[in-house]
Amino acid sequence: MSSLTEFQKNVLEIISTAATPMEIFNQMLVVPIINTVSAAMEEKWELNNGKAGILEPSTGRLSQDGLIFQQNFTVNSYEIGSDFRISIEALMNYLQETSLNHFKSAGILADGFGSTLEMTANDLIWLACRSHMEVYHYPSWADVVQVEGWMCRSGRNSMRREWRIRDLKTGKTLMRASSLFVLMNKKTRKFSKASEEVMGELKPFFMHFDLPMNKDSRKLQGLDIDKADYIRTGLNPGWTDMDVNQHVSHIKLVNYVLEGVPRSVVESDELCAMTLEYRKECNMDSVLQSLSKFSSNHFINNQEIELDHSLSLECGTELVRGRTSWKK
Amino acid sequence: MSSLTEFQKNVLEIISTAATPMEIFNQMLVVPIINTVSAAMEEKWELNNGKAGILEPSTGRLSQDGLIFQQNFTVNSYEIGSDFRISIEALMNYLQETSLNHFKSAGILADGFGSTLEMTANDLIWLACRSHMEVYHYPSWADVVQVEGWMCRSGRNSMRREWRIRDLKTGKTLMRASSLFVLMNKKTRKFSKASEEVMGELKPFFMHFDLPMNKDSRKLQGLDIDKADYIRTGLNPGWTDMDVNQHVSHIKLVNYVLEGVPRSVVESDELCAMTLEYRKECNMDSVLQSLSKFSSNHFINNQEIELDHSLSLECGTELVRGRTSWKK
Repeated sequence: MSSLTEFQKNVLEIISTAATPMEIFNQMLVVPIINTVSAAMEEKWELNNGKAGILEPSTGRLSQDGLIFQQNFTVNSYEIGSDFRISIEALMNYLQETSLNHFKSAGILADGFGSTLEMTANDLIWLACRSHMEVYHYPSWADVVQVEGWMCRSGRNSMRREWRIRDLKTGKTLMRASSLFVLMNKKTRKFSKASEEVMGELKPFFMHFDLPMNKDSRKLQGLDIDKADYIRTGLNPGWTDMDVNQHVSHIKLVNYVLEGVPRSVVESDELCAMTLEYRKECNMDSVLQSLSKFSSNHFINNQEIELDHSLSLECGTELVRGRTSWKK
Repeated sequence: MSSLTEFQKNVLEIISTAATPMEIFNQMLVVPIINTVSAAMEEKWELNNGKAGILEPSTGRLSQDGLIFQQNFTVNSYEIGSDFRISIEALMNYLQETSLNHFKSAGILADGFGSTLEMTANDLIWLACRSHMEVYHYPSWADVVQVEGWMCRSGRNSMRREWRIRDLKTGKTLMRASSLFVLMNKKTRKFSKASEEVMGELKPFFMHFDLPMNKDSRKLQGLDIDKADYIRTGLNPGWTDMDVNQHVSHIKLVNYVLEGVPRSVVESDELCAMTLEYRKECNMDSVLQSLSKFSSNHFINNQEIELDHSLSLECGTELVRGRTSWKK
């Protein structure tokens, strides 16, 4: 295959290994990313060999005419859990940081936390309402990962972000994730429609094809306390859990969902997929309960365990509904 | 002063501005650091101007014959609180990361979390037992800070670490901190003496003078629940709070101490100093209460508020005792 370009080789590889047409389409998107990663790696080596020393940590860069944003992160000791692997919280933090820096690099960030100029003029903020992620391999302390993120319009009023995390050294994909965001008025705390001005400002940075939001399109089930297999009560977010949008960050809420996973599962299995639906904001000094239940088909091929989740206030109001898969 | 070396100029500046002999001594330590920072900054600019692009985040470097370790951090969006400034937790995380990378760069790290080869052979881990920190200015999202850390032997059985955090761009000192560490056997969970083998391995990396551990040498007071001005109960660390030493990390415990600060203080003042004494390990599923009390001289010059703290299990066993100062 020496007469083929790198692009052609990548396409051939995708077609020969993908199982379905959707998978081919899905993978095709990544071809330009793969090439950019290689270029970035060559550049890195050149710099490292040319000059050793202390470098200002990068805040990433735009590629593909501003459609993709890339940022590298070194996994720090405080981002790993008791099993020495990176926490879900840290992975989600990387996604958030990459998204904010995407807006910033594109020159459309107004207030420093994901609101564009038009959004700020209308008191609007982004609110995550549904997330899906798949983790194939967990990096550890000192590994360097590259996050690539891009965004698409989704319907009239929402935006979808997609991310891929790779091991910078090997190029291996470690995680994929997708989140749907809607607009909320930060004064009234009510959902808002997206005006043409708001969407117009973002349009130049939207990908022009619409991939399905996630691979797990099954409806998420509600969960009664008397049907739960495991209940963790008394979860108690405080002022140190608040973010600049004046609520408990959706990433911190994921930790509370995970506290509701039976300890036997946490100790012997690792999370490989998660789908979450954020239903209500969580305020400081709420007292939460995190429920989980083994789903009816919870042993998939005798290898994966599947759990349904519900995170709610003690009065019953549901904040987050979810599903996780775990494997040995 | 153009005929003086940079070193001489720095010394002259210190002597002319320091108030006490101890302050002069204290500041003298920093002269070589200041020079190294300047060199690092020049190098950075050279690199940035010579070649733009994505760089692998640095994991720092040794200087002063291995006595000082420097590492840069970019403040990320997920490290700031609802007031847009970096959290205490994030600052403490930077200190920890710098310390671990110091051992790693020196080639004496065995298990990836602060234990040297000799320590690992004897099942020993480091345990923070007392910390003092002063924050002069809080950086915000996207600021780049440089952490410098060094260590000294303290008595026969313990080690003290010192850190200084600066704004990389301006060189301004943002924070200073100091922590005392003792050895614990990770199987018996009991304190251990330091053998000559353990200390011998560290000796080449110890600073050879002994500065006082912190400026606040006043005894920390215990605090009865019926004398507390503010009580936060039901704090509930879970499996997502555990670290690789199989206990709740001492940095997470600081968050629980801070949850016990009256909300009126949190909302109008900023933490400028903190002294903590760690008395017992905290395990998963402990239920904690965080107490605080305005200290008798709590209005210092009508500007600073001082609080005494006690973090304990609900049964009364005290885990952390502390004092914080807050200013408008």
